[in-house]
Amino acid sequence: MKKAFLFFYLLFLSAIVFAEDGYDLWLRYTKVDDPALLQQYRNKINGFLFTGKSLTVTVAKKELLNGLEGLLAISIADKKTISGKSIVAGTPSTSKFIQSFLSAGKFNLEGEGFVISTQNANQKNVIVIAANSDIGVLYGVFHFLRLLQTHQSIEKLSIVRVPKIQNRILDHWDNLNRTVERGYAGASIWNWHLLPGYIDKRYIDYARANASIGINGTVLTNVNANAMVLTKPWLEKVQALANVFRPYGIKVYLTARFSAPIEIGGLKTADPLDVEVQNWWKQKVDEICSYIPDFGGFVVKANSEGQPGPQNYGRTHADGANMFADALAPHHGIVMWRAFVYDARVQKSTENFGEGKADANAPSIASSDRAKQAYDEFKPLDGKFRKNVLVQVKNGPVDFQPREPFSPLFGAMPQTPLVMEFQLTQEYLGQATNLVYEAPLFKECLDADTYAKGKGSTVAKVIDGSVDNYAVTGIAGVANIGNERNWTGHPFGQANWYAFGRLAWDHTLSSEKIADEWIRQTFTNDPRFVTDTKKIMLMSRETMVHYMTPLGLHHIMGTGFHYGPAPWVDNAGRDDWNPVYYHRADSGGIGFDRTASGSNAISQYAEEVRKQWEDVKTCDEKYLLWFHHVPWDFKMKSGRTLWDELCYKYYSGVDSVRWMQGTWNGLKKYIDEERFDQVKMLLGIQEKEAVWWRNACLLYFQTFSKMPISADYEKPDHDLQYYKALKFPYAPGNGGNL
Amino acid sequence: MKKAFLFFYLLFLSAIVFAEDGYDLWLRYTKVDDPALLQQYRNKINGFLFTGKSLTVTVAKKELLNGLEGLLAISIADKKTISGKSIVAGTPSTSKFIQSFLSAGKFNLEGEGFVISTQNANQKNVIVIAANSDIGVLYGVFHFLRLLQTHQSIEKLSIVRVPKIQNRILDHWDNLNRTVERGYAGASIWNWHLLPGYIDKRYIDYARANASIGINGTVLTNVNANAMVLTKPWLEKVQALANVFRPYGIKVYLTARFSAPIEIGGLKTADPLDVEVQNWWKQKVDEICSYIPDFGGFVVKANSEGQPGPQNYGRTHADGANMFADALAPHHGIVMWRAFVYDARVQKSTENFGEGKADANAPSIASSDRAKQAYDEFKPLDGKFRKNVLVQVKNGPVDFQPREPFSPLFGAMPQTPLVMEFQLTQEYLGQATNLVYEAPLFKECLDADTYAKGKGSTVAKVIDGSVDNYAVTGIAGVANIGNERNWTGHPFGQANWYAFGRLAWDHTLSSEKIADEWIRQTFTNDPRFVTDTKKIMLMSRETMVHYMTPLGLHHIMGTGFHYGPAPWVDNAGRDDWNPVYYHRADSGGIGFDRTASGSNAISQYAEEVRKQWEDVKTCDEKYLLWFHHVPWDFKMKSGRTLWDELCYKYYSGVDSVRWMQGTWNGLKKYIDEERFDQVKMLLGIQEKEAVWWRNACLLYFQTFSKMPISADYEKPDHDLQYYKALKFPYAPGNGGNL
Repeated sequence: MKKAFLFFYLLFLSAIVFAEDGYDLWLRYTKVDDPALLQQYRNKINGFLFTGKSLTVTVAKKELLNGLEGLLAISIADKKTISGKSIVAGTPSTSKFIQSFLSAGKFNLEGEGFVISTQNANQKNVIVIAANSDIGVLYGVFHFLRLLQTHQSIEKLSIVRVPKIQNRILDHWDNLNRTVERGYAGASIWNWHLLPGYIDKRYIDYARANASIGINGTVLTNVNANAMVLTKPWLEKVQALANVFRPYGIKVYLTARFSAPIEIGGLKTADPLDVEVQNWWKQKVDEICSYIPDFGGFVVKANSEGQPGPQNYGRTHADGANMFADALAPHHGIVMWRAFVYDARVQKSTENFGEGKADANAPSIASSDRAKQAYDEFKPLDGKFRKNVLVQVKNGPVDFQPREPFSPLFGAMPQTPLVMEFQLTQEYLGQATNLVYEAPLFKECLDADTYAKGKGSTVAKVIDGSVDNYAVTGIAGVANIGNERNWTGHPFGQANWYAFGRLAWDHTLSSEKIADEWIRQTFTNDPRFVTDTKKIMLMSRETMVHYMTPLGLHHIMGTGFHYGPAPWVDNAGRDDWNPVYYHRADSGGIGFDRTASGSNAISQYAEEVRKQWEDVKTCDEKYLLWFHHVPWDFKMKSGRTLWDELCYKYYSGVDSVRWMQGTWNGLKKYIDEERFDQVKMLLGIQEKEAVWWRNACLLYFQTFSKMPISADYEKPDHDLQYYKALKFPYAPGNGGNL
Repeated sequence: MKKAFLFFYLLFLSAIVFAEDGYDLWLRYTKVDDPALLQQYRNKINGFLFTGKSLTVTVAKKELLNGLEGLLAISIADKKTISGKSIVAGTPSTSKFIQSFLSAGKFNLEGEGFVISTQNANQKNVIVIAANSDIGVLYGVFHFLRLLQTHQSIEKLSIVRVPKIQNRILDHWDNLNRTVERGYAGASIWNWHLLPGYIDKRYIDYARANASIGINGTVLTNVNANAMVLTKPWLEKVQALANVFRPYGIKVYLTARFSAPIEIGGLKTADPLDVEVQNWWKQKVDEICSYIPDFGGFVVKANSEGQPGPQNYGRTHADGANMFADALAPHHGIVMWRAFVYDARVQKSTENFGEGKADANAPSIASSDRAKQAYDEFKPLDGKFRKNVLVQVKNGPVDFQPREPFSPLFGAMPQTPLVMEFQLTQEYLGQATNLVYEAPLFKECLDADTYAKGKGSTVAKVIDGSVDNYAVTGIAGVANIGNERNWTGHPFGQANWYAFGRLAWDHTLSSEKIADEWIRQTFTNDPRFVTDTKKIMLMSRETMVHYMTPLGLHHIMGTGFHYGPAPWVDNAGRDDWNPVYYHRADSGGIGFDRTASGSNAISQYAEEVRKQWEDVKTCDEKYLLWFHHVPWDFKMKSGRTLWDELCYKYYSGVDSVRWMQGTWNGLKKYIDEERFDQVKMLLGIQEKEAVWWRNACLLYFQTFSKMPISADYEKPDHDLQYYKALKFPYAPGNGGNL
């Protein structure tokens, strides 16, 4: 006990003066700590020359100045003419030098790409950062600073980068009262009450962080939408944010509440085929664009979990989406219409629209399969959407689980651009406390082959438009940030924000490469620290799958707050909210039969994909219980029975967390105490939670398998009743809890 | 518009590298920027010698080390023997030198006092920081650092400080889901979900900040209490916080939900005279103390605004308080029983206990006067409480209004120690956005003479025990902090936390002296900045009274969220929730007659006090409409009619805010841009809100006075209907809004 006190004090006290509180994210411009390299950099750079005068150029210049002065610890000159040791940055429209450089190189940079290149100008060696647009220059500046932050050589640079996806967007599930649905990092960073008069410095730093990784859009409000944000006082607030973000190339989007014409417009209906309704939305969009001329458009969650939608009027999702699209088209806005729907029986009245609550009184759908419903509803609508509609699809067919196969909609909508929706906030991935690096999860989905146009039609190539020639492309990440000092609560949450941005820009980057960059920028370039931390990060997602939902299990977490294990729950408001609906454990085995003998969800995939999974004997074991109901004594590839394999996986998950703890403990001397201790404490909590998941799930499943947990394993320290009795009414991220 | 963009960018960009984000509060140990003074300090100090090994000594040493190394920018030696240029710090029990120094000086330091004195030891000049206890040494260290931070001479020190009040406590109205009732600075700093495993560094810095101003207690939970905090999982969380705070001399208290024996104990009653109930609380306190041996005790809000209490069982407040007192006495704990009650007709059943909601269905009490009820209920109970019960009384008889006369309970309870309850969070004082320095409000109350034992029986002397010889004394401030980076949202909110602590320690300090200290520590010692900022602070509270509630007006704010003016509201759930109940404007005049011809609330004061206020002709005009219903054409001391005086006050309030803006704008070059701009933007919002208050109130009262607003004044820019129609469903601090 006394030891514990001392622990905290010794930890923190030494950090009082020069604390690393995490606020600076990966934009820490601390002095390069390798003397030889520092000298090399200083030999190459003592100033820069920028052309152009836009706000974007102004912020790019400032960023480069602050970055270089921090990293090189020398004064950096703002030069007026090209001379040696300079960075020359600009666009063809403001610089003849850049103009001739770019036309000579025949680069295909489009609007946002950039070149960084060592060049000879007036007999001087200079580093050119060139782009067709000011925002391209800003992206180039951030990329260049990253080279120095990660200790890359800048001797002979020849870098060309162009984003593969056009709209790279963070979705905030932030409410107007500053709570955040599925947020685990304090209150919303949008301090609506003080807007537009008070501009929190966080807004600037948020924009800097996003621009540094190429994110170019932000949806400010929760998909469970509130019509009030579309009224004048709120549009003034939104405008203030848009003004802050614009120089950083970030467009603002809002969520549109389908029933807004009734709720704030005084109309009697929200029927998308009603002319009055259509005109109301047109005028509303015109009004929004009078505040925000470059307004990005809407995200709409309709006829899903209680949100109203076109089906309330007997119309289709296409009817609904097209109404918004027509209103947005004159302003070049887009609609991102979410495919996250799983309720075919929609109430037909306009009354009692829920406020983000699912319709608990809907009739039972035990006979259906929730995993099939997005495809069933949207596939028939392919070709029926306007050109500026994108359908936004979660990576998997259910809901951001630790592991799901890719959604069968990818590859199935050749005429409809699909937006990938990833979840950065760890709703199902250990929430506030678990170190889970999500890039491997994102990559697993992006790299999956849909076989839509033959082998190589990966999900990534579907969403970047190269499979089906989409004219507009997009990717969205549900944000994991709040007003905690370090933005994400868990210091490693920052890595998921970073990884999303980097992959949105270039989905061919590896998880390992992104982790490497992030660690070096965020902590240190020390090779031991980088190596070990990368190991931790790269194993973390699979580790979590093992202690939560191994072998294709899914959706067995606590109801409502989604915190902790609760595979026993069978009394939630709807069948498909119940863990028992998903794992289907019984004396005969466990798993959801989604083959032809079951729900046949597997039929929604291309034949080549189906073949990988449809035979229980050859199915990739990571999806085994997703697609099959498997006997407890089924022989796994390891030679173990399914039950023993399940035990093995759960136990190995906990073991891996303990390995992560031990490895992290060995890294104390390489970084600041504040963040070291934060991670150490959080890993301690994660270990307890991993044990809790393992024990609760195995004890529960054992009531069906009737098979023993090997005596070689540590015995669960509580019985099943104990775990079932745990209650967490104030777990964060749900119903106003923070 | 474009100018506005540029404004923000130029503001913030230059602050990217060396930003002052306000997190360090008044504990900024930046290098002394006066070279001569710096040399003087360095000539006096190059090290220190500490005796003792407790955690408190450890933190004191660390604080002194960090403080001196920051302020003097030299290495400070941790010495083993007394030598020149040293600070010698310790207690008699660990240092013979200190022992002989203290016994020679015959100081009366009690447990928490300290001496700072220049002494000759072994022919060397040293600075002694001596106390009877380790916590006294820590207080001395903070005081010494403050001398350097505020550029005081340390040539010949002879300082003795002893706190005048024993229990100096912050009350957090923080809920278990991390929302904060009447909080305007983000989420609660208590991240309950991550406790006990994760210790946020904020907890340490919170303790440091409190110890630096002498605060020695913290009530962690909302007075609208939740019994769950008394259950095992939560006590483990509370214990973790108590462990962090203990070395800083801070005791932990909780709020006790009166009905907890029913809600978490499984009993059928919470009757305080029921033996089973009494035993339940005894066991509960024993359990709490098994986690936290130095547990401070309970704050109880009972039979108030829907909270259950002894009156539900036909018992008195004394019966209720004594039950807790008996349970706490063996552990030396105390009960702070709140006198904030205003509902004589309490429901008698144990059912439907509200969750922090007042009983809207209670019968009308228009015939009574809410300002009288605390006195009416508690005065008869004087002498009926156990020794370890303190009755906690808000400074005024209604509810933390911009101005109220002192509560008549002060001086009226000679046998019952009274705790002063101030509100630091600005529920009625402009909330998140108004710069209001509260020390003048606190001092006005503390310095008011109750005449309880003849002239000079000030409120301060009542609560410090010198009027009635209370054996135990206390003062509480309702905290204004949250998880925003700078703790209080508004940078000047920090001054109210600081001022509360300093006055709790020594109520004879002047508002001016405290402001001076705070400005120098928080911003700079530059004389121009100090002078002008002090002017702004010292005028700010009176300014707010003028534009909100001049001449004794009160409780005319918006219902529920208490944001903005709403003097017209007459339909709130109870009569005494309505602004019209308090201002009583009609064609004949305005104001609440509390003299003998009215509610006679004035009779609750001593005769000498009554005489000051009972005659409308001589009553101090700042309380005029608090005590009198006054005709619109009443002749004021200024020669103006009441109506014209009201106009004059409201307009001068707005003018003063504009003066504050102009003065602040002149201070740009003296401090960091980040905080300069924050305050500038907030003053801009404050100016708009002041205009809103002025216009809405005058236009509304004009419907009764039928008299004109002078044409010399700027015309209200909207009509009354506009102001009445404003809606703020997401204003912070109320019902889960942040």
